[in-house]
Amino acid sequence: MPDAVLTLNAGSSSLKFALHEIAGAAEASRAVVRGAIEGIGTAPHFLAHDAAGAMLEERRWPDGAALPHEALLDTLLAWVEAHLCTERLVAVGHRVVHGGDLHAGPALVTPVVLAGLETLSPLAPLHQPHNLAPMRAIAALRPGLPQVACFDTAFHRTMPAVAARLPLPRRFAEEGVRRYGFHGLSYEYIAERLREAAPDLAAGRVVAAHLGNGASLCALRDGRSLDTTMGFTALDGLMMGTRSGSLDPGAVLHLQQRHGLSAAQVEHLLYHESGLRGVSGLSGDMRDLLASDTAAAREAVELFVFRLAREASALAASLGGLDGIVFTAGIGEHAPAIRAAACERLAWLGLVLDPAANARGEMVISAPSSRVRALVIPTNEEAMIARHTLRTLAASRQGEPASA
Amino acid sequence: MPDAVLTLNAGSSSLKFALHEIAGAAEASRAVVRGAIEGIGTAPHFLAHDAAGAMLEERRWPDGAALPHEALLDTLLAWVEAHLCTERLVAVGHRVVHGGDLHAGPALVTPVVLAGLETLSPLAPLHQPHNLAPMRAIAALRPGLPQVACFDTAFHRTMPAVAARLPLPRRFAEEGVRRYGFHGLSYEYIAERLREAAPDLAAGRVVAAHLGNGASLCALRDGRSLDTTMGFTALDGLMMGTRSGSLDPGAVLHLQQRHGLSAAQVEHLLYHESGLRGVSGLSGDMRDLLASDTAAAREAVELFVFRLAREASALAASLGGLDGIVFTAGIGEHAPAIRAAACERLAWLGLVLDPAANARGEMVISAPSSRVRALVIPTNEEAMIARHTLRTLAASRQGEPASA
Repeated sequence: MPDAVLTLNAGSSSLKFALHEIAGAAEASRAVVRGAIEGIGTAPHFLAHDAAGAMLEERRWPDGAALPHEALLDTLLAWVEAHLCTERLVAVGHRVVHGGDLHAGPALVTPVVLAGLETLSPLAPLHQPHNLAPMRAIAALRPGLPQVACFDTAFHRTMPAVAARLPLPRRFAEEGVRRYGFHGLSYEYIAERLREAAPDLAAGRVVAAHLGNGASLCALRDGRSLDTTMGFTALDGLMMGTRSGSLDPGAVLHLQQRHGLSAAQVEHLLYHESGLRGVSGLSGDMRDLLASDTAAAREAVELFVFRLAREASALAASLGGLDGIVFTAGIGEHAPAIRAAACERLAWLGLVLDPAANARGEMVISAPSSRVRALVIPTNEEAMIARHTLRTLAASRQGEPASA
Repeated sequence: MPDAVLTLNAGSSSLKFALHEIAGAAEASRAVVRGAIEGIGTAPHFLAHDAAGAMLEERRWPDGAALPHEALLDTLLAWVEAHLCTERLVAVGHRVVHGGDLHAGPALVTPVVLAGLETLSPLAPLHQPHNLAPMRAIAALRPGLPQVACFDTAFHRTMPAVAARLPLPRRFAEEGVRRYGFHGLSYEYIAERLREAAPDLAAGRVVAAHLGNGASLCALRDGRSLDTTMGFTALDGLMMGTRSGSLDPGAVLHLQQRHGLSAAQVEHLLYHESGLRGVSGLSGDMRDLLASDTAAAREAVELFVFRLAREASALAASLGGLDGIVFTAGIGEHAPAIRAAACERLAWLGLVLDPAANARGEMVISAPSSRVRALVIPTNEEAMIARHTLRTLAASRQGEPASA
């Protein structure tokens, strides 16, 4: 079996992983195993599937509430190594939500890098500590195994300063309260795919729409991020499955001062009870809303599209015009009705949908006459992590930093 | 002397007024006296000027900290009546920040109307009570004098439901947490002036930019509001003199949870220490920033314009295109550099500035070839209040509600 890279996406109670085989060129890795450990801290459950979806392994620890992350990672590494038949695991790539101002590209994990990333935990307290814990565990379990941190923020470091600035007193900017943007691994993957699939468009002004349960837009010019809708946190910008997106700051204060909610209660409300779920009163899953015939579900969908068109137009201003829009992630890839509604609201920019191509889910869904092109490109954040990991490894062997 | 209307704009410690002479047609009133009582609650100070700016009256109450609003209003009414030589004061028009869902146009003040407006005070606790207090005082002092309430929100009641909806759980919408929008009296005045000055453009898709110390944009189609940047509160939307405008709700929570600020402290920060003042660290007054050569002042101005262009483009999406932009209020009327920078960032929409016309402050500042027209129209909210007051009075005499 050829060499392989393990990619990890660690959350508070789950650890998603994928094993990528390296086929010749470093760029040409492909995921041969996908799996997860769910229920960490309650009843851990390990699952692995092959590329065709056939189950390779399942284990449960019904009484494993106290099992530390490290023990579970040891199990995972041992299983991966056994599955590979030999020790061909060459590196581990981690998804890390926050690289702050420290990282404009992926980084080989060292004690110094890890210490730096720990200082960013206050910027993303719900995610960063969980992203970092497996790095420490693996460093202890397999000291010789290279690890690479890949950041959701790094791709947006090309934004001009004005796009990153918040309208707050300067002292907060100095403490790191600025627009970082997220979904960067997805946007970087889209930018690279677009360069292959439509190089002329990739060189132009493109809004990429990552519409998953979390959702954001990125303004790409020549494949670089110039602006994005998520801000200091992943609560900003588009309306999402259960997150509000942008909200009048006066409304946030009103919920506290007039409705008597604490900051923690408002945080829960805005992250988990708002967005599609809050407006529909039904579900945060776009599929449920599209299948529903209630007025509230229609209102939620309409608001999602309205805000998407508003924000895409705002990003067109940051780009100085619009040549194309790329839809990706769950809703972007699989909800033609949402793509059609969004394109209709962007018709004023010269976007003409090809309804048949959209219904069939083709890559190009705009009409040949459309001044603004619309595309659907499936994203693949773990492929981007694998790619970054191999590039960083290759660069470190040459004693050079990997290019971002 | 002909009949006259008194307009009032009451805040927490000040009461601005103007006396409008009615010359023939009700529409043709003009302000002949302007003045204010400042320092209410500390050391009240009454000032009145004629239309040419010459002082007509000045009074001070150095020990008047305990003087109630009612006593000061009595002084004002007596002075107005004396100034008019006879009792030709036919009505008082009030600026009221919030008409909520109750009022889509001006309303004759009755005990029932007043009680309804009081229920809206929780939506605008810093302004609404002060707007209403003089109505009660005048009703007691001059029971026969008609009063009309004119709302900052009413003009935006034509917005489609989707533009008014916030991405929050439905129960909050039912309690009135929605986008209302403000500066409505200014936008209505602009819409009426535009209909006279450029009737073809007035029938089209126009973004009106009210850029004062408070600042917002309104999307006008055929003179009706379809969208606006201020939301549930006047803290939303554009960056302002000392207000943040739109802000990642996660940043609002961060200021509390990580910087240990209370909701009240954050409210003060976002209303009084942010925006131009916060980013520049220098001043919330655009004139000071344009006169400064510090990098921080330039950054504040750049961010103001960047956000203005982003939001104007978002409103163009709500309008389905853009035919024109109208600049008004302090910055909009008097800062050609800001208009030029904003137009440059909107060049992608087909807006071509005429730099000479802009520098001279002409009404039309776009080039003849410009696909999107740009205009400067001075606003006059008190003239709009006087107009509404006379129309409402005339309609009530005919036993009909005034048209909005």
